[in-house]
This record gives sequence, structure tokens and C-alpha cells, in this order.
Amino acid sequence: MTLQLNMQSSQLSSEEISTLKEMRSRCAKNILLSTSLASSGHPGGSLSALDMLLVTYGCINHNPSNPQDQERDRVILSMGHISPGVYSTLAEFGYFTEEDFLSGFRRTGSGFPGHVERIVPGVEWDTGNLGQGLSTAVGIAHGLKIQGRSPKVITFMGDGEQQKGQISEAIRYANKYQLDNLIVIIDRNHLQICGNTDDIMPQAVREMYSSSNWNVKYLEDGHDYNSFFQAFSDSYQSPNGKPTVIVSRTVMGKGISFMENLAKYHGSPLSPEQLQKALAELKVDGQVDKWQELRSQAVKTNTIQEYVSQAPEIAMGEPILYGADTLTDNRSAYGNALLGLAEANNVEGTTLISGISCDLEGSVKMGGFHKHSPQAYIEAGIQEHHAATLAGGMASIGMVPFFSTFGVFAVSEVYNQNRLNDFNHTNVKIVATHVGLDVGEDGPTHQCIDYLGLFRNYYRSSVFMPADPNQTDRIVRYAAAMDGNVFVGMGRSKTPVITKEDGTPFFDQEYSFQPGKADWLRRGDEATIITYGALTPTVMKAWEQLSADGKKVGVLNMASLVPVDEEAILEAAATGPIVSVEDHHIDTGLGSIIALVLADNGKSVPFKRLGVKQYGGSGKPAELYRRQGLDSDSITETVQTILA
Amino acid sequence: MTLQLNMQSSQLSSEEISTLKEMRSRCAKNILLSTSLASSGHPGGSLSALDMLLVTYGCINHNPSNPQDQERDRVILSMGHISPGVYSTLAEFGYFTEEDFLSGFRRTGSGFPGHVERIVPGVEWDTGNLGQGLSTAVGIAHGLKIQGRSPKVITFMGDGEQQKGQISEAIRYANKYQLDNLIVIIDRNHLQICGNTDDIMPQAVREMYSSSNWNVKYLEDGHDYNSFFQAFSDSYQSPNGKPTVIVSRTVMGKGISFMENLAKYHGSPLSPEQLQKALAELKVDGQVDKWQELRSQAVKTNTIQEYVSQAPEIAMGEPILYGADTLTDNRSAYGNALLGLAEANNVEGTTLISGISCDLEGSVKMGGFHKHSPQAYIEAGIQEHHAATLAGGMASIGMVPFFSTFGVFAVSEVYNQNRLNDFNHTNVKIVATHVGLDVGEDGPTHQCIDYLGLFRNYYRSSVFMPADPNQTDRIVRYAAAMDGNVFVGMGRSKTPVITKEDGTPFFDQEYSFQPGKADWLRRGDEATIITYGALTPTVMKAWEQLSADGKKVGVLNMASLVPVDEEAILEAAATGPIVSVEDHHIDTGLGSIIALVLADNGKSVPFKRLGVKQYGGSGKPAELYRRQGLDSDSITETVQTILA
Repeated sequence: MTLQLNMQSSQLSSEEISTLKEMRSRCAKNILLSTSLASSGHPGGSLSALDMLLVTYGCINHNPSNPQDQERDRVILSMGHISPGVYSTLAEFGYFTEEDFLSGFRRTGSGFPGHVERIVPGVEWDTGNLGQGLSTAVGIAHGLKIQGRSPKVITFMGDGEQQKGQISEAIRYANKYQLDNLIVIIDRNHLQICGNTDDIMPQAVREMYSSSNWNVKYLEDGHDYNSFFQAFSDSYQSPNGKPTVIVSRTVMGKGISFMENLAKYHGSPLSPEQLQKALAELKVDGQVDKWQELRSQAVKTNTIQEYVSQAPEIAMGEPILYGADTLTDNRSAYGNALLGLAEANNVEGTTLISGISCDLEGSVKMGGFHKHSPQAYIEAGIQEHHAATLAGGMASIGMVPFFSTFGVFAVSEVYNQNRLNDFNHTNVKIVATHVGLDVGEDGPTHQCIDYLGLFRNYYRSSVFMPADPNQTDRIVRYAAAMDGNVFVGMGRSKTPVITKEDGTPFFDQEYSFQPGKADWLRRGDEATIITYGALTPTVMKAWEQLSADGKKVGVLNMASLVPVDEEAILEAAATGPIVSVEDHHIDTGLGSIIALVLADNGKSVPFKRLGVKQYGGSGKPAELYRRQGLDSDSITETVQTILA
Repeated sequence: MTLQLNMQSSQLSSEEISTLKEMRSRCAKNILLSTSLASSGHPGGSLSALDMLLVTYGCINHNPSNPQDQERDRVILSMGHISPGVYSTLAEFGYFTEEDFLSGFRRTGSGFPGHVERIVPGVEWDTGNLGQGLSTAVGIAHGLKIQGRSPKVITFMGDGEQQKGQISEAIRYANKYQLDNLIVIIDRNHLQICGNTDDIMPQAVREMYSSSNWNVKYLEDGHDYNSFFQAFSDSYQSPNGKPTVIVSRTVMGKGISFMENLAKYHGSPLSPEQLQKALAELKVDGQVDKWQELRSQAVKTNTIQEYVSQAPEIAMGEPILYGADTLTDNRSAYGNALLGLAEANNVEGTTLISGISCDLEGSVKMGGFHKHSPQAYIEAGIQEHHAATLAGGMASIGMVPFFSTFGVFAVSEVYNQNRLNDFNHTNVKIVATHVGLDVGEDGPTHQCIDYLGLFRNYYRSSVFMPADPNQTDRIVRYAAAMDGNVFVGMGRSKTPVITKEDGTPFFDQEYSFQPGKADWLRRGDEATIITYGALTPTVMKAWEQLSADGKKVGVLNMASLVPVDEEAILEAAATGPIVSVEDHHIDTGLGSIIALVLADNGKSVPFKRLGVKQYGGSGKPAELYRRQGLDSDSITETVQTILA
């Protein structure tokens, strides 16, 4: 049943063309039906891109009976709103039935959501926020190159979408890394929601690609099967060291006389009367009553594609133990651990771990990794939006990308890119080496004090904040081996090794990191200080002052913040007052998490939150901390007050 | 003392050149001294841009004795790290003394932070995160055009920075709106932190501008005073309907033999020995001991420039009252209120209110505003990063920009752009018309359920969520008139008018909105439901069910979430159990705010949070709510359980 076009031929046969035309007719019907039945959705762009979708799926190497086939070509739909066009095409190729699609489209709980999602067999990537799809495709294409694999990567994009700045970043990157396994198709219908693209935002689309050395092919008629086939098959079969973009002049609403070239059909379905008129033009019977009846029945979930983990087996390597007298920064411990992971996993022609940075290799301590695995060290330039999404794409083919830069650039700047990765169940490790006031003199624009406030809005990401070089080592190795997105944050400064009361390292050979498990650095029965990360040594100093003062106070190190150790917090609450200390916005981090645990459990204890109460300044970290009441004296005083 | 170059002349006089050389020598000394004294900072780029800074400040219209002069030209330093170059230049022009700068640079609490900030007299805009400065400048330039004012806007940018995608958005926009009052200067030294820009990320910088129809001027030697002067004064004096970029080939570390063309001096100060060698090359005495002595004394704060509000007087216009039987959406009420604000404030040649959207004019109901104030309606294209920053720039010259799009694009996508606006005390009104699961069929990528989770990380922004069209009207008018950044969010769907028990509108003629003040929609002595926004009508339905069941439950509408009404929450806690209900991530919104208030105040009551527990699906809002336990039955049941 599946159409496979013969790319050995210089043009399509008349049989192939007539098959494509039949497919188009059914798909056009289903695009119009699905959106009218749902009373919402995007028919115009779907009809615009439809011919190119059909030829593309007719050419590529894919296996509808096994959508997860590792050798399949990947198609990324960056303009996720053309889901009716995509689903109708995938139905033609046998990924599911027309009935599945039409009875379920845009219904709660069905397998056919309004913007394309991976729960639909054949869909590789959840999209919907424009401008990110190319970066995903670039990440996949680069990952495949690194691993020496042959699948091609195809991306469909709208032309309005070209306005998003992230696309210019991805274009440059694809040129730098000569990704000739990448084919981009732009549906150039010259319309976006509010009108003509030339009126909304004048843009020289083809020049944007050609000025970055891409192969640029322009088709006067993107609906002409043969010309698109020739452009596509040539790009597919004759890579020349450059990525290719096929810019196809198309018509919004193509094939329905009263829809053509009208922007309003971007996001408006046809009324029942218009639908009948359109179906008459297509000379097909829409069987509207039948579908309405099916849509009044319970939603079917049979086609929903479960998420399949792409996380590879990762060897964690030999932990590095930093002695009690070591004075180093957690960044260096990260760099050492990352090198260890490369040594354990990027061997004998296999490359599992990649390292991505944005013009900060030295600061994020990726030099050792770069030297060991030059094929997998990626300098993405000052293009964080692209880099974050790129990492997600790379993870989707079974690599483990480490993305490292300052916290502000890895989290605050790319919140929505990380969010799309979270949707897509990726396996990205973001290790930010400069977070908090600990960044110091570079000042507030560079001080990330919202990583928890931001990451807590996702549903599928973890946040780990190591307290010293030993814990950094163990957390980084753990993060590499676990499946899922992880944020690991650390300050910039050198920091002492946390020790037990006997003076030996707390995080020693016996220690292994567990998500959702806090560390009782000290036990005490009068009160508990809960902290993490850069301020743990300061809290330990306060603990010493309090001990000298005869106060028996516990210190709980909360290295795993998402998920959090509720039991430990409740244990602290059962003991007595709690003081939380964090190098983070005072209302959205650890203190807020503790408050939730207390409130949810109906517990009330004397509770004082110490954190960042205003934007930090430019100065030495110790001074910035003091100004915010985050020095050991202030902590000591707070505990003494709460105990008084 | 201040140098004023004669732009009537075709070239600089020899006196002018010798003055510039003297200034350069002092500035170079101060760049090296300041960074070495602080043991951190960015000398390389400062020396690279220095000659252009001096000529620029020599040409422009500015008034060092009154940095807030409304008619001054604006200079935006996009690469905020060249603060030593900027501060030394501003000292030359008399904004403050060399001593102020050298004794304070990068010291906690001083007026001379590591990246440029508005606390420094002469600095217009806090920067530090690359890629945003051009959008700010474009916003100022466009605002000045709209208001018919004559100042010019000059932006300095680095060349590595050109990699940021947001810059490509700003370039297109400046072309669309023909901003010929804008001059961009690119310090093209071909180096960024990790090496040569051509190696890090190949880019055709000049083509990026010329393909958007800019005037592009290239200088082979950006250190040649005359050629830069000629390019600048020509651009300044002869606007031709296009923005201008001057791309100047410069040398990192210019003027110090051993620093030139070395990337490492981007962010590394000289050692004491190197400093002496450099000072010898400059033939000046650095008086290092004197400055060290001054820097060991208490920090002086005398130069710190307080923030001066740019908010204009806004007439709130006549409120619109929606009767109890009205069924409309809050979006339409917003559109009506915005039109009312335009009618009241954009009159008789004055334009105070602008409206910015990103290809969603109809959805965000800006049509009425567009028709009334076409000069101030801005279609920014699908370029949200640029649009968000643009709004901040426009606000900085005394306009009140309303930026409207879906919540995901207005908040999640541009978190860091809004954060920079927050730093800069701007007066931007973000009104997002599609937030929460209420967005419905467009699915999770379009459902913003983190607006509170994100905005709560800022320190200077308010969040207001109206419950119905009446409250929308009042909040939008209030937001326009108050000074400061405000986020107003609303769902997409039609929603009933909230009424008193007597059936008349709750938010009636007597009502006026107050930040930090919640509304007791119903009083009850057994428990309280706290809610806001799209779910308030659902909660009112639950209240009816509970009333019918004989339960006396209060309903508290929390339209002002930042700042929050702590007293009202404590009043609820004093009454009995609390149930919070929100169309928002369950852990980072209203429930989290309530938990903080309870925990901070040592209160413990039975407390149940209802909210969004997983990414929403694609379907009808009512169904999506039900799946998350946010329908009236689930709310009723939760209250009954907590009371049982």
C-alpha cells in the first residue's frame, strides 16, 4: 500500500503522478473534514504543504509498521499547526487509518492533537512554538554525522516562521558543521495569520540561507510533483558538503477555489456549507454524518504511541575523590567528571557523550572533554536558543548531550527551548557553571538566581545542586547515566570539600547520589538549617559558630531539589524550627519548596527563609552575600533568634 | 571641558584629533587600571571600541550636567561588558570623575558595576546579556519617530554578538519601519572569547544588514578618527529613510603591543607586571598605589543615578460596565479598554499608548486600537524576543507600550527579555490573551501555565489576572496609568460576568482595582476557596453546589497575585480550611504563594491545592479541566472532603 517513489529515475512516472493525485484528493478531503469536524485547526497551510509532504514521504526511507526503526530518515515538522496535512499524509502511508485520525482529531485524550506531537506514529517531535524545528533537525543531523550513521533529516518550515531569530542561528550552525544530510523545505505561500509576509515583515528568505553557503533551490511551483521530486531527490542523493534548502512557492488553501491565497484560512476551518462546496470541488463524498457520529462516541486511544526511551547505556566511570584539604571549584570537578565519562563511553569508534558550549569552553571547563573527544565537542557560538534545542535533537537519536554555559544563558535565556525538550522527553544534561550571586563582579545580568523558579515549571526535568567537588563528581556521573533532562548548577568560585565531623570527606567512597535523597551533614535536635550548593560551606561555618555556642542544630544538604526529599523536610519539621538558606530568589526556590511541603502536610514550625531579596550587585561574592544576609554571621543570628 | 566635534566640517581639525588622542591615552590607562585594580573585567574590547566611543560622544547631542535631558541622543551599549571603555569615556565628557570610576569599579555597592547599568550617569540601559541592545535602540528610535521627536539613537555592538538570533529580528524590524534615526556601530575585531569569529561561527555580518536594505558602511580601520567621524557624521546628518550600520574593522586590545589581537584579553585584566609594561607603552604614570589606597577605603555611592520614572500621566478613560447577562471574553473587554485608553491619551498629535503584537492582531483584539491609532499600532511579526525588548525601549522614552500575544509567546518564550526590562525599571504592559488550559485545542505548546511561576522571579513586575470582563476593563485601565511592568493574563474563551448574590455585577461602578487587594466574592465561615482568572466562574458554580448542600464557604478572588493580599489569605486561614484553584502549574502559582504566606506566618490549616498537574492536552477547555480535577464537581468534592 505504501508509495515508494523511484529516486533512481530523473522524473516521476505517470503512474506515480496519478497515485500522488489520488492521495492528494483524499488528504485534501481529510484536511477539510478534520478541521470542520473539530471546529478548529489549520486547513490553509496544510493544503499548501500537502503536495510536498506526499512526495517527501514517498521518497524517504521509513517504515510505517515500525515507526521507531533506527535507520529511518527523520522528518521534523517545524510548523506544528499543519497537523491535518501531516496526519492525513501519515494515514496514506499506513501509520494509522483515516478513521483513527478523523474520529479523534483535536479531541481530549485522543492520539491526534492540534499541533503535531510524538504520540502520533510517524511524528518525531512535538512542535507548535515556531522557530525551533530547524534546530532540532540540525541536532539530529549533527548527531547522526558524529555517530557515522546514514539517515537523512528533513525539516518542513513555514515562511512566516522564518522571522524567528533562532532560525538564523541554526542556519549558521548547519553551515559551520557542513550538515549535508539535512534538507529543509520551506512552504513559501507568502501568507501568515495577519496577511502577506512581505507586509508583515519584509525578509529576504533565500539570501538568509545563501549568505551562509547553503544549497538554495527555488521552485516556482511547489505543487508541481515533478519539479519538487527532482529537487528533493537530487538533494537527497547527491550531498555536496552543504545543507540544502528547497524554497517552494506554494498557494495557501491550494486546490479549493475559494480558499486559495486567503490568510484567514491559516487557522479557520470551513463552515458546514463551505465544506460541502469544497467537497464538491474535490468530487468526493465527505460522509460528514458518519464522522460526526463516530466523534460523538468515546475517544479511542489505540494509536497513541508511547514514549520510547532513547537513552543509551552509560558507563559512569571511576569516581574521583577529592581529599578534605582540596580547594578547587565545582566547575573543575565537572570538567574532570565529563572527561571521565568521555573516556568510558566515547571509545572504539562509538560516541555517546557530546559536549556543547556557547563561546565559553574554558569557563565551563570543557577543555579536557574537547581534547579527548574532538568529534563530539561542539562550539555553538553565542547562539543559546539554537544550542538548547540542538541538544534536545541530538538526545533524540540516543546521544547524551551535555550543554554547558552560565546559568543565565542555559536557563533564563532559553526557558521555552528547554520546555520543548521537556515535552519531548529528551535526555539533555544542562550543567551551568556560573549560577547565583557567586558569579560576583559580572553583576546581576550574569547572576542566575531563578534556575529553580524556572525548572520547577516543567514536569519531566530534575534539578541537582552539588555542595562540593565530590558531590559534583558523583552527580554528574549519575546524571549522565539516568534517562531524562537534568539541570546541574554550581557557582563559579573555589569551594572547600565538605567533611564529616571527623574531618574526612562527607561525600566519600561510600557515598552514592540518589535523586530525592537529602544529606544530613550534621544532626541536631534543636533546629535544622536546610541548604544546598554554593552556600553549604557557609552554613557549615554557621553550624560551627552555633555549636561553639552550645546549640545543637542539624544541617540538611538538599542536593536533589527536583525531586525533593519530603521525608527529610518533615523530619526536620518534627525536630523544631527550620531555616532555609539559598543563593536563589527568596520566593521561588528551596524556601518555597519547603513551604509547600509544610503546608501540604499541615505542619507548622517556626520557619525563616534566607535568600536573594533583590537583584545582586557587582562585587565580590562574599560581600554580595553579606548584603543579602547570606553570610555565616547572619545565618547564625537567624538561628539564634528563631531559637530564642 | 566637554569635547564637541564640528559635524559641519568634512573632516576633523588637527586640534580635534590631538584632543581625541589625549583623551584616548587617559582612557586606555583607565581601562587597564580599572580592570587590573578590580582583578576582573574586560579590557580587550574596551580598547577596541574606545576610539569610536570618543568620536561618537564628541558628535552627539548630550548634556553631561543633565543626563536626563529629554532631547539628548540615546546611546545604547549592547555589549555591556566594555564598561571600562564606556566609563572612561563618560569620565572624559564630565559625567563623573576619573577618581569616582577608578576607586569604585566592580566594588560592591559602588556606582560602577561590571556590566553597564543605568545607575551610571550617561548610561541609558542595563545590558550584559548579549543580543538585546539593538532591540532596545530600535524601540527607542521607533518611539521617537511616533512622537515626532528629533533625538538620534546610537547602538554599539560587538561582532561575536551578531550571532544572537534576536539581532536578525531587530534588523528586519528597523527596515520595515524605516528607522533612519538609528545608527549602529559594530566593533568588528573578529575575536570573541574562544577565538576568531570566523572559526567560532562563520557569518556574513554585512550581508545580514544589506539584505534588509540598511545603509551599510564598512571602515577598514575603525581606529582612524577621520574615517569614523566622516561615516558617523554623514549618517547622523543625512538620514535617507534607512537605518545605518557602520561596521568598523578594529583591533582587540588596540594600542598595547602585547594585547593586540589576542582573544584572551576579552575578559582578562593585566597582571601588575603587565600593567606596568602597558603604562610604560602609554607613557603615563598609573599611580597604582594611590588607587589601591582609595579602593581600600569605604565605597563611595555619590555618583549613583537614581531611577527616574518615565511614566507619563495617563487618563484612564470611562470604565465600561458589562451587565450581568453579558457573555463575552476578557480579550474583547481588553480590546475595548485599550481603545478607550487610545481615545483618552492618543489625541491632538500626542501619542502615549502604543500597541505591539506578533502576527495575532485579531486574536488579541487590537483591531480597534489599530484603527484609532494606526501610527502606534505595531505589527512586529513572529519575532517575540525582539518585540519584548522593543517594548522596554519604547517605554524608556515615556510611552506606555501594550505588548499582546499568547501567554506562551509573551512570557515563556521571552523570559530573559522581560527580565532585562525588569532590571531597567520599564513601564511595559504585557497583556496575554491566551493563557492556561483555557486555550484548548491548540494543545500544550500553546497553553501557558507558568506565567506566575516565571513572573514571580522578577522583583519589579506585577501580575494581575482578571476574573471577568468588568474586572478586565478596570485592571487594564489601572495598569496603563500605574508606573511599572505589569502582566495581565486571561483565557481565550467567553466567560460570564461575576455577580453578587443579588445577581448584579460584582465589579460594578463602585469597584476600583487595587494591587495587593483580593475580592471576597462570597463570605463563608467554614472554609475558603481561593482562585482567580478563568476558573473563577467554575468556583462560583462549586460555591452554588456547596451552598445548596448547606456549606458556608467563602470565595476569595485573587486578581492581584503579585503583589498578593497576605491579609486576606490570613483571614481565610483564620476561618478554616483553604482550597486553592488555578489554571496554572500546581506547584508554582497561587497555591505556592498561599503556602509561603502560611509557612512564613506559622499558620497551619487543612489546605488543598488544585491546579495543572501535567501538561494539558488538545481538546475542549471544559474537558481538559475535568481531566485535571479543575471542574466544579471536583472542586465541590474537594471542599466537602476537607470539611468532612
